[in-house]
Amino acid sequence: MTPSKPPGKRRRSAPPPRLPSPAPPVALSPPGFVADRAEAAARVERLLRYQFCDRALLEEALTHQSFSDGALSYQRLEFVGDAALGLAFSNFLYLTNPTLGPGALSTLRAANISTEKLARVAVRHDLYPLLRRKCPRLDLLVGQFIESVKQELMHDLATAPYGGSVVKAPKVLADIVEAIAAAVYVDCKFDLEKLWKVTRWLFEPIITAETIDEQPVTTLHELCQKHGKVAQFKTWQKDGMIVVNVFVGGEMVGLGSSEQKSLGSVNRNLLSSASENIGQNLSLN
Amino acid sequence: MTPSKPPGKRRRSAPPPRLPSPAPPVALSPPGFVADRAEAAARVERLLRYQFCDRALLEEALTHQSFSDGALSYQRLEFVGDAALGLAFSNFLYLTNPTLGPGALSTLRAANISTEKLARVAVRHDLYPLLRRKCPRLDLLVGQFIESVKQELMHDLATAPYGGSVVKAPKVLADIVEAIAAAVYVDCKFDLEKLWKVTRWLFEPIITAETIDEQPVTTLHELCQKHGKVAQFKTWQKDGMIVVNVFVGGEMVGLGSSEQKSLGSVNRNLLSSASENIGQNLSLN
Repeated sequence: MTPSKPPGKRRRSAPPPRLPSPAPPVALSPPGFVADRAEAAARVERLLRYQFCDRALLEEALTHQSFSDGALSYQRLEFVGDAALGLAFSNFLYLTNPTLGPGALSTLRAANISTEKLARVAVRHDLYPLLRRKCPRLDLLVGQFIESVKQELMHDLATAPYGGSVVKAPKVLADIVEAIAAAVYVDCKFDLEKLWKVTRWLFEPIITAETIDEQPVTTLHELCQKHGKVAQFKTWQKDGMIVVNVFVGGEMVGLGSSEQKSLGSVNRNLLSSASENIGQNLSLN
Repeated sequence: MTPSKPPGKRRRSAPPPRLPSPAPPVALSPPGFVADRAEAAARVERLLRYQFCDRALLEEALTHQSFSDGALSYQRLEFVGDAALGLAFSNFLYLTNPTLGPGALSTLRAANISTEKLARVAVRHDLYPLLRRKCPRLDLLVGQFIESVKQELMHDLATAPYGGSVVKAPKVLADIVEAIAAAVYVDCKFDLEKLWKVTRWLFEPIITAETIDEQPVTTLHELCQKHGKVAQFKTWQKDGMIVVNVFVGGEMVGLGSSEQKSLGSVNRNLLSSASENIGQNLSLN
């Protein structure tokens, strides 16, 4: 393993490298759409092994505001789902980590329900084609993200389940997961335990105190999101090495590299060096 | 009613007034401490009309990290309580506002569980003296806030239940409320409905879609908090008028005035003018 160099020192001796040009566009297959709405609902029910008492809730969860000019959309459910998943993960983390302090608990909760993490849940279970929408721009963004996740999987990068794409995760993907979770929660009369039983497996692998250090990417996304910044990652291979650069506001704030093929097992230094630099350089702390 | 003038225009024609000097120090009575711990627990139980199965949870909720160098403190419970109150209010607002959009729902949730609102719950029910702590500086801050709330009540200002003090609410006061809520929630085996039944009345008056416009102070606190800023309010009377100035970063961003004695019924214009100015002047939007 090659430890990452302190980027702060690099920046004082030489001008920081700029964000590399975006990769050339690839031919994207559109995300698709399931026009048969009974089939769309049935897919979710099969996925969750849960049958809705009120399927209208599920259809609401699968409707983007662009579909009917906002007359009906998943947004109210997403409002509930965000809080329901927040408490479900709080309970789980509180009970499974009896000695962990509040800071570490908060970091774990944030990492597990981050936009990056939930968007990957939506991609993994092919949820976007179930969404009623009329927004070609959204399709394009989602298509780019899905392609980016596929590329990671092809390269067998261990970041894939957690987030670490060069393409920012579109919020709509996380929204769908939160809205479906809320549809289950409201349908089972606000029974949080039931919601957790039905949906928990979707969120596997759950980021734990033992694995959090292996998800520098997720943690950095969270750190930046908290301060209204956007982290971008550029992952590339050179001479058998994997190299990751972290950019915030177009400026490089951290890098990590490894001779192995797994980012997850390598970039433990990336988080601390980049976090420190983000704090120092952008006065976020 | 005298509507507030657009502060943006005022600022272009004349230099903005600066934050007035703080009021002269008043003789503070220390917040006090209930050394008899059985009595402290009994007070909470009488208040909530709830008997704990495990009183150790309640004692944990009533212990500040300064008491035993962080060995035991309310912080883990506060982590759960924050999320539990978040979902409890989400459910309540979702069910009682079937046509309200997600933005308004989020604003209502934030207003009801803001530090300002919860700190006033702690003051109203005299919870701070029940807290085990060893931190004279905290006592001082809390004492100042309690005094400031008392002053508002003496002046019969309608902001008192919601927040609008010149003194910023100390986070510890909101923490105590969240930790006690979590103690109940964990004690009753994570039954959110039970938690809501036991604690809901503490949060009265709940800020609703009908009354949110009457709480410009709470809403502005939330807006600023969201963007890492601190709002300060200076309320004063002149020639039978009540005048409120809003400062962010020492700069005045809004003002409202009224011939009535109730701020709540008057300052509907304050929120929109100050919010707009905060967004424009501090590039928060």
